Amino acid sequence: MLNVELLIKIREDNPLVHNITNYVVANDVANVLLAVGASPMMANEKEEMSEIAQFSNALVLNIGTLNHSVLESMIIAGKAANKQGVPVILDPVGVGATSFRKRAVQKLFEEIDFTAVRGNAGEIAILADVDWEAKGVDAGKGSAPLLETVRKVAKAKDCIVAISGKEDMISDGIKIYICKNGHKRMSGITGTGCMLSGIVGAFAAVEKECMLDAVIAAHIVFGLAGEQAAKREDVQGPGTFRTALIDELEKISPEDVKKNAKLEEAEQ
Amino acid sequence: MLNVELLIKIREDNPLVHNITNYVVANDVANVLLAVGASPMMANEKEEMSEIAQFSNALVLNIGTLNHSVLESMIIAGKAANKQGVPVILDPVGVGATSFRKRAVQKLFEEIDFTAVRGNAGEIAILADVDWEAKGVDAGKGSAPLLETVRKVAKAKDCIVAISGKEDMISDGIKIYICKNGHKRMSGITGTGCMLSGIVGAFAAVEKECMLDAVIAAHIVFGLAGEQAAKREDVQGPGTFRTALIDELEKISPEDVKKNAKLEEAEQ
Amino acid sequence: MLNVELLIKIREDNPLVHNITNYVVANDVANVLLAVGASPMMANEKEEMSEIAQFSNALVLNIGTLNHSVLESMIIAGKAANKQGVPVILDPVGVGATSFRKRAVQKLFEEIDFTAVRGNAGEIAILADVDWEAKGVDAGKGSAPLLETVRKVAKAKDCIVAISGKEDMISDGIKIYICKNGHKRMSGITGTGCMLSGIVGAFAAVEKECMLDAVIAAHIVFGLAGEQAAKREDVQGPGTFRTALIDELEKISPEDVKKNAKLEEAEQ
Repeated sequence: MLNVELLIKIREDNPLVHNITNYVVANDVANVLLAVGASPMMANEKEEMSEIAQFSNALVLNIGTLNHSVLESMIIAGKAANKQGVPVILDPVGVGATSFRKRAVQKLFEEIDFTAVRGNAGEIAILADVDWEAKGVDAGKGSAPLLETVRKVAKAKDCIVAISGKEDMISDGIKIYICKNGHKRMSGITGTGCMLSGIVGAFAAVEKECMLDAVIAAHIVFGLAGEQAAKREDVQGPGTFRTALIDELEKISPEDVKKNAKLEEAEQ
Repeated sequence: MLNVELLIKIREDNPLVHNITNYVVANDVANVLLAVGASPMMANEKEEMSEIAQFSNALVLNIGTLNHSVLESMIIAGKAANKQGVPVILDPVGVGATSFRKRAVQKLFEEIDFTAVRGNAGEIAILADVDWEAKGVDAGKGSAPLLETVRKVAKAKDCIVAISGKEDMISDGIKIYICKNGHKRMSGITGTGCMLSGIVGAFAAVEKECMLDAVIAAHIVFGLAGEQAAKREDVQGPGTFRTALIDELEKISPEDVKKNAKLEEAEQ
Repeated sequence: MLNVELLIKIREDNPLVHNITNYVVANDVANVLLAVGASPMMANEKEEMSEIAQFSNALVLNIGTLNHSVLESMIIAGKAANKQGVPVILDPVGVGATSFRKRAVQKLFEEIDFTAVRGNAGEIAILADVDWEAKGVDAGKGSAPLLETVRKVAKAKDCIVAISGKEDMISDGIKIYICKNGHKRMSGITGTGCMLSGIVGAFAAVEKECMLDAVIAAHIVFGLAGEQAAKREDVQGPGTFRTALIDELEKISPEDVKKNAKLEEAEQ
């Protein structure tokens, strides 16, 4: 359930989050991690992957602009993180778009034990092998029952799975939680999903016992920051919204989170 | 001539624009595409290039931070797009700067049929083999008659060619149009040319008949967004201008375009 | 000492600064260079490195997301710049984090004569082989006497060395200057160190005689822009601060610099 202590803990511990991410959003991911209280590190070179796992507190793998060389780095980094007990998050960006991405994600699941997977509806539907028409890296449309899908994938992959969208659905394979925080402006800028995956890394880094709580808290905090940003008078469009979103991640307080979280357990 | 319907069509159809672009501007290009109503996708891996061409509505190739590996991906993607009838846009960033870039662009022209080429005066002058002193990736100075140059290149390359600058000149090899929208602040931030090339992709994606119209509309819409951004009270310099530019691309209406377009056909 | 003429000279000459930098900060580095009055160029392909050195006015090497291929490009570019008499700046991002980075920096020092090195306390301490506990790419903590460290490294490497942080320390191996401009918000966004290294490149490009002056002026100008940005009413957090920082680099006048510089020579 909702554990606001995790936000306080990120700000106290400044966990180091290693990101192997795409070049489109790397700057935004680094800035949201700093804003929320974590320390970002971006590094791809195979030779340093194992060493970085020894001092990292979380690893986030994002396949947004994946190539074969970076895939190799991800596998080395993921295995090293698993050995060190460092949580590993997967963001399967556009996995439905190409067979290269599908095979890459399959390979990642074979080689690495993931702590959590976060994607949009189209991406998680692909992981569940359900019918879905994705659109490039965007969510696309489909008729799959999403609550069932998120739990199915969580169970099959034995990790926390989150579908982010208008409503976020998060499951550990048994329970399913729905988070209704967020704002439609978040889908109007590039990389909000990638930023959220980075933030999931920060929350996972400071929570050793219940990863479901970490993933839930990350979604609520990010969604609330989006709501607060959208309300600001200086926000006139996607440019100012993106800037405000980073501001609000720094401003958000545990009290804000307690007061404004919209979290419920799904009836099953 | 000016076809404002294309802006409406982008917002209705949300065309998917595949960009193989440089890592300096990738984030801005993605955000301006979203702001104007399109869906951006950035991907470079050779293995997925043909597949992406099958569901893309336009392909934009930008050589800003080109290397040999990305050049190969561009050729595969461009050929696949040609086969699928997907429009292909070239942004020959800094082509005059090095012989590697000159050879790369020559190779791209040999292998791919381009729908449109957009560059600054220095870049297009190089394609016309006229005298010009470029400065890195910036426009530089020269005495070439630009109107003649843009038409010459359009004729030689058999596609729409645009020189963007204080005044934009756009030709299909026969006619030449001059667009006087825009603001000098646009040259004070990095990547406005690259952003515009992305937007040309979005307009080309929704216009099947007259690519000259698509390129003209893209230049007017982007120039107008720059004018509107520069007028804003919250704009104090290049940082706030860049943010406002993305806002204004979302706000701009077909009425704004009709009312404020500064387009004329060049006398010849 | 403080030479405000250099800021005027950058705005008059628009020196071209070639950056081989990381993909996290490339956009910000380009935008701060434009804002301060320089022309940025980002390029990595080995084949064009020597040619770019022939028309560049400075070269900045930043190892933030280094890999083996880019390391090779850096060596070619650095040697060519040395041959042309173009100043070369090193930003050893996270050099203490991994043995790959340590070896890479060692190799760069073997092959290239650097004009200046700029890093945080942890990075420069590593170059001095003093005791320090770095944290990823952040400064970390240590007990090394920093004034002694910066002079020691400057002497050993025979170039200007700067430690940036709450107080910047800059030495040519003999004298040490302390610059107290800046604002704590600068450490709350990603890449301020990388941006400053780019700006050091711009100042080095227009100063042929005293590189110590160029490095000092870069630190003061950037620190002052940070102070001015932090004071703005529209700055509410790291997002708006980053945007304002770029604005202020354009606005800052030689008079501002003269009036508000906080520079002193360290007593030894």
